[in-house]
Amino acid sequence: MARNEDLGAIVSIGDELVIGQSLDTNSRWLSERLTDHGITISEHVTVPDELGAIVSTLRRLVDRSGVVIATGGLGPTADDLTREAISVLVHEPLIEDQESLSLIRGWFSRSNRAMPEQNRVQALRPSSGIHIQNDNGTAPGMHVVVGGANLFCLPGPPSEMKPMFEEYVGARLTRSRERVVRTAIFQTMGLGESEIAQRLGSLMARDRVPLVGTTASGGIVSVRVRYEGIEPRERVDALMGETEREIRAAVGEAVFADGPEPLAAIVIGRLRQNGQRLSVVESCTGGMLGETLTAIPGASDVFLGGWLTYSNEMKERLVGVPSELLQRHGAVSREVAEAMACGGLTRSGADHCLSVTGIAGPGGGSPGKPTGTVWIGLASRSVTSDCRRFLMRGERHVVRQWSVTSALAMLDLRLRNRSSLGLLRQQDP
Amino acid sequence: MARNEDLGAIVSIGDELVIGQSLDTNSRWLSERLTDHGITISEHVTVPDELGAIVSTLRRLVDRSGVVIATGGLGPTADDLTREAISVLVHEPLIEDQESLSLIRGWFSRSNRAMPEQNRVQALRPSSGIHIQNDNGTAPGMHVVVGGANLFCLPGPPSEMKPMFEEYVGARLTRSRERVVRTAIFQTMGLGESEIAQRLGSLMARDRVPLVGTTASGGIVSVRVRYEGIEPRERVDALMGETEREIRAAVGEAVFADGPEPLAAIVIGRLRQNGQRLSVVESCTGGMLGETLTAIPGASDVFLGGWLTYSNEMKERLVGVPSELLQRHGAVSREVAEAMACGGLTRSGADHCLSVTGIAGPGGGSPGKPTGTVWIGLASRSVTSDCRRFLMRGERHVVRQWSVTSALAMLDLRLRNRSSLGLLRQQDP
Repeated sequence: MARNEDLGAIVSIGDELVIGQSLDTNSRWLSERLTDHGITISEHVTVPDELGAIVSTLRRLVDRSGVVIATGGLGPTADDLTREAISVLVHEPLIEDQESLSLIRGWFSRSNRAMPEQNRVQALRPSSGIHIQNDNGTAPGMHVVVGGANLFCLPGPPSEMKPMFEEYVGARLTRSRERVVRTAIFQTMGLGESEIAQRLGSLMARDRVPLVGTTASGGIVSVRVRYEGIEPRERVDALMGETEREIRAAVGEAVFADGPEPLAAIVIGRLRQNGQRLSVVESCTGGMLGETLTAIPGASDVFLGGWLTYSNEMKERLVGVPSELLQRHGAVSREVAEAMACGGLTRSGADHCLSVTGIAGPGGGSPGKPTGTVWIGLASRSVTSDCRRFLMRGERHVVRQWSVTSALAMLDLRLRNRSSLGLLRQQDP
Repeated sequence: MARNEDLGAIVSIGDELVIGQSLDTNSRWLSERLTDHGITISEHVTVPDELGAIVSTLRRLVDRSGVVIATGGLGPTADDLTREAISVLVHEPLIEDQESLSLIRGWFSRSNRAMPEQNRVQALRPSSGIHIQNDNGTAPGMHVVVGGANLFCLPGPPSEMKPMFEEYVGARLTRSRERVVRTAIFQTMGLGESEIAQRLGSLMARDRVPLVGTTASGGIVSVRVRYEGIEPRERVDALMGETEREIRAAVGEAVFADGPEPLAAIVIGRLRQNGQRLSVVESCTGGMLGETLTAIPGASDVFLGGWLTYSNEMKERLVGVPSELLQRHGAVSREVAEAMACGGLTRSGADHCLSVTGIAGPGGGSPGKPTGTVWIGLASRSVTSDCRRFLMRGERHVVRQWSVTSALAMLDLRLRNRSSLGLLRQQDP
């Protein structure tokens, strides 16, 4: 296949990824960044710590891409083979880079340690390669040009890889000037993916320009619009605008956000704008709702905190759920969800309080309350509290994730003064 | 390359994965399962919703593997192209499977809805293919034999993919009877990856049998031992045992767990054995510690719950941190961490209480307390409380993740009566 300068590929290297011991999050992050830079990703590949596999994968991808980014295999141990693979790929022996060696020594001396001899290999690079300085670890990155392709090798740990990408790689990504890549995303809730598709109709034809696609994840169906081509920018703007209007006409009532911003960030933005504050009382999610909110930098402006009332004892003691309610209705009930939300509201002094109580599984279900039954409560100052029951299908993690999404969606609807929660109906994954 | 019956490959299909909008978690999960079945994974590949890319990737992989598992692209919309790709791959037109069609109709009628016409395409399969029933969604899976390879196409949503794998695919994975695959994992804490490697020395040689490798993630360095071959089982047992003894001799003091079980599960197991209960008081982790604990089914036996004291106001009001301490030492200090842990211990009635307060960033740091400064407190009944300061480098998510790991490690050491916390030193990612 001929090389396409605007085409990129991502390679993750490591036995721990291939055997499933670790989850690769680098590829996703790099994809987002490359896409932002106007590069079209043709594929992600994950290969084990085997010299032959690394070399043949890199060779296949540099032959057809303008940019290849590899992560992993730059550590100090014998199973870190990326340096050797590049040496084979570019037919050059490895040489010791004196500047890199002194940076690695410096890294250890900053914590008053001598550099283990083991780490010396990290200073090796092929003679035509450039080392990329690592301010967050010992492994320098590498930049080599193979044929016409730029190959960047970055360390596997995200805390080292990301700053190196931002500081070095991003600035060196070239692309054809006339090529235009544009993406728009609309997040919807309340309609199934097939209903969205049916309403969008011919908008989703595979030969349409721009292309429209959908993805369902955690209770949210995202509609993506994507243009890639060489038409004049004004024409692209017109095409994108027209497609957006058609999407809004078809499914606008279900759209709760433009763009890929997570629902937690949207809700935090709305609360900040209103000058309002939020607290939470979590049972089956055990902290996941708070964690999701506080994953957003600046959440402290609006998020006060809350309670993890995992046991019934804590529901009574911490937020004052009456024990009669727990006995009569059970912990997973409208009454308890409401008491949790109201108890949290008054005790926190917040403007809104979300509560979640449910059966995440795998055990704990009964015929009347099957696994996946979740009650979510929302109490707000001077507004009637609202409690909704959801029946979620899926394993423990899915039920908890959907519970968090549904809780945030209930709050989002209230913050937009949509008193009718019609679009947030009982959800089946 | 000649086909190797014991070789497997995993393909993820979807624009949302390739452009980085969604994170692929299926490949990791499938890798673990296939490895358990004695299959050696040669690679993971992620491709966009493009017929050509899907067909050429599948063709390349079925030519050399015994098993290929593809996920995604089985939805009802026009960008779901897996059915068509298989049709091209096996040179067969698609036919409508009447049984699948009635199952899909049944899926909708169970929620009192008519099947949207759109979903009809999900009943299509190549004539030699077998549909795999989906009890958790509308998309049937597909099983086709291409050349000598078994190709399984499963839906993308994990809640549909996983049960389909467990119920259908797992039972059909064949392997050469004489082939043996064995994996052992030791999790360590307190030594850097290069120190571990230096101590392991020649154990990590690339030509050693079994192979020994290391991976660092979230403050934990895992040492993996892996055997793949055709030697008699007794011989393999002896080789694995001998390697294990050598690893323990070299780094045993840092090993806190055999096997891949997460630290949270280990801690919960120890608490259960002791008949003890735990509560938490979280500031910068905002719920992540509770979430990590409650991700383990059965956590309710030992985890009572706790407080998210994200604001100073909540630290005072909920767990009684004196406002003088907050004013004099700041929220991120030994004194406040200790007050949080002790306040949580007495108010929860638990046997142990962990507290976390820190600066996760990106903002909020100062010269005296840089971003990444985290204090962790552990209060226990009738034992002096213990507070430790960590300086973690990395972005917000990394600092929070390491804080959770470090908190669990502090508790783990206490539960093992290691009064010296020497191995849990200040950590740099």
